[in-house]
Amino acid sequence: MLQVNEENLRVVDFEKGGGLVPVVVQDASTKEVLMVAYANREALEKTLKTGFAHYYSRSRKKLWKKGETSGNVQRVKKILVDCDGDTLLYVVNQEGVACHTGEYSCFFRTVGEEK
Amino acid sequence: MLQVNEENLRVVDFEKGGGLVPVVVQDASTKEVLMVAYANREALEKTLKTGFAHYYSRSRKKLWKKGETSGNVQRVKKILVDCDGDTLLYVVNQEGVACHTGEYSCFFRTVGEEK
Repeated sequence: MLQVNEENLRVVDFEKGGGLVPVVVQDASTKEVLMVAYANREALEKTLKTGFAHYYSRSRKKLWKKGETSGNVQRVKKILVDCDGDTLLYVVNQEGVACHTGEYSCFFRTVGEEK
Repeated sequence: MLQVNEENLRVVDFEKGGGLVPVVVQDASTKEVLMVAYANREALEKTLKTGFAHYYSRSRKKLWKKGETSGNVQRVKKILVDCDGDTLLYVVNQEGVACHTGEYSCFFRTVGEEK
């Protein structure tokens, strides 16, 4: 269970994205960006209530708890909302790996790099 | 100018999001998550070509170079694509601040926190 800041919770604007907001997931210890998923109001509420990251699957059209089948759960330390209220940041302790490919982070392929 | 990995560039799937992908922006030195914006193919190409972060504004419906008016440009060190190709990560050196409110990061409000 997380301690909720009610004023900042009201800032979260689910309407803009048709009921969903993107969620950036960051490792609390390494600060690595692990993945991006989506949350509806219910997913955010379940996350706040349980302390485990929940999302909304756009393809399966349902709520999911990260790691429910794989065991790779995310214990959420902190949730932040951005300046215009349409994006969340979950800062987590990742159990196992974040990516379904087996990589630790979903961002493992470089498109461009400074020479 | 960034060195491009052509194979990974082809992974980027703009179609899924109607021509746009979300871009997570991370500070290269502090690893702080600074903001989330959106890119179309042109914005990504301009970023790769110039080394400065470019995005597509959904409200103004046009390409923009971050910091063009404010001077708060982002020099891009690295661009990564996620496992399913529909999200980018720009790792940047931020000039000034990232947020239009004057905060360094757009994520400055806490919604929930571990007790």
